[in-house]
Amino acid sequence: MSTENAKKNASYAAVDQNLDPSHQVVGIGSGTTVVYVVERLAQLDTERRLVCVPTSFQARELILSHGLRLGRVDEYVDIDVAFDGADEIDSDMNLIKGGGACMFLEKLVASCARRFIVVADHRKSSVALSKGVPIEVVSVAQKRVFMELERLGGRPRLRDAGGRKAGPVVTDHGNLVVDCEFGEIRPGRVAELDVSIKALVGVVETGFFPGMAHKAYIGLEDGTVRVQKRRAAL
Amino acid sequence: MSTENAKKNASYAAVDQNLDPSHQVVGIGSGTTVVYVVERLAQLDTERRLVCVPTSFQARELILSHGLRLGRVDEYVDIDVAFDGADEIDSDMNLIKGGGACMFLEKLVASCARRFIVVADHRKSSVALSKGVPIEVVSVAQKRVFMELERLGGRPRLRDAGGRKAGPVVTDHGNLVVDCEFGEIRPGRVAELDVSIKALVGVVETGFFPGMAHKAYIGLEDGTVRVQKRRAAL
Repeated sequence: MSTENAKKNASYAAVDQNLDPSHQVVGIGSGTTVVYVVERLAQLDTERRLVCVPTSFQARELILSHGLRLGRVDEYVDIDVAFDGADEIDSDMNLIKGGGACMFLEKLVASCARRFIVVADHRKSSVALSKGVPIEVVSVAQKRVFMELERLGGRPRLRDAGGRKAGPVVTDHGNLVVDCEFGEIRPGRVAELDVSIKALVGVVETGFFPGMAHKAYIGLEDGTVRVQKRRAAL
Repeated sequence: MSTENAKKNASYAAVDQNLDPSHQVVGIGSGTTVVYVVERLAQLDTERRLVCVPTSFQARELILSHGLRLGRVDEYVDIDVAFDGADEIDSDMNLIKGGGACMFLEKLVASCARRFIVVADHRKSSVALSKGVPIEVVSVAQKRVFMELERLGGRPRLRDAGGRKAGPVVTDHGNLVVDCEFGEIRPGRVAELDVSIKALVGVVETGFFPGMAHKAYIGLEDGTVRVQKRRAAL
């Protein structure tokens, strides 16, 4: 089985098991897995009844290219169900997101969603989060935020645009992205660390999604899908 | 005594008692009282040795018009002492700021300052904060933030530009300002409320300055100055 098949199987299962005839507004995340979520939505929503709220430019294009109905999160703050990928998922269903620098809108849509469903392949699943967490920072505060992150035990670095523009990545909201390593983070500590980082002056949002996901659909190498549920939602 | 004299006396006392020959970098706040702070700094710093870091366009103009040396907070993250006004000061020295929509930079400069000195006239002093708190919010999240603020017991309203531009005020960082009433806030509850609001997705910064001020210089009606110290700093 390829990773693409794992993603596709997980996405189709996630949509099939969580989309309800009563639903009117669906959140659409960003990333490679979401392509299959939108593909499946377009197959099921033949009457184009659902309003799809994107979390990024990519998600918006995906919705439009499938001829689905586009909504905006500033109009639809009550979302029935949202589907999104993740860069890492721990055993308590805490997520790290923001590889695509869209974590602000992704977190806004997730916080508006009554049910937030994560779709990913098995490589994203781990016992404890250990990837660096992306943090959106107001440009003028970058130096100070670095000092404060180091005080919290982090190793921050500014995300470079990698030659596609000179200097750092600038987000859709005009801010910088700081990727900050904290080593392996105990699942019980993620929510607290998220609040400590968000409290820093200059931090617009973090890529931690602590306890926000209701279910995760993990596509495995053998083609099957493992469904992980939040403890409180078991 | 006029209010202007009260402001001037408080400002001069604040500068005289808190500026030290070892100081190199000074933070300059925004508002009508700070005019006298800069006036006094310009009298004392005859050699233009001090680097002055402004918190707003107004502060920058004030520094330049007095021929003082201008610095930027993204270069000088260690500030020896910062002077700023306040919209309201409670008995525990918690502040509300942001009447001028500059609370983001004001809070950044205050958080960079080893000593943060508040200067105000007696009308700003109260037992408990009861003015609405200004909150800087990313535009697309406004509706959701309103819902969440109401859940926290607040009564939010979007700050209108008052005819100087159509629609709402836009901050120097491109965001909206939400003024949110919470009635009278017990001093011991301010820090916790600040963290709860800042944690909301879409909130860039609040106008609460809990426990950040080291001293407040309050200009009284009779021309004297009352000095209020933070409890931990007594």
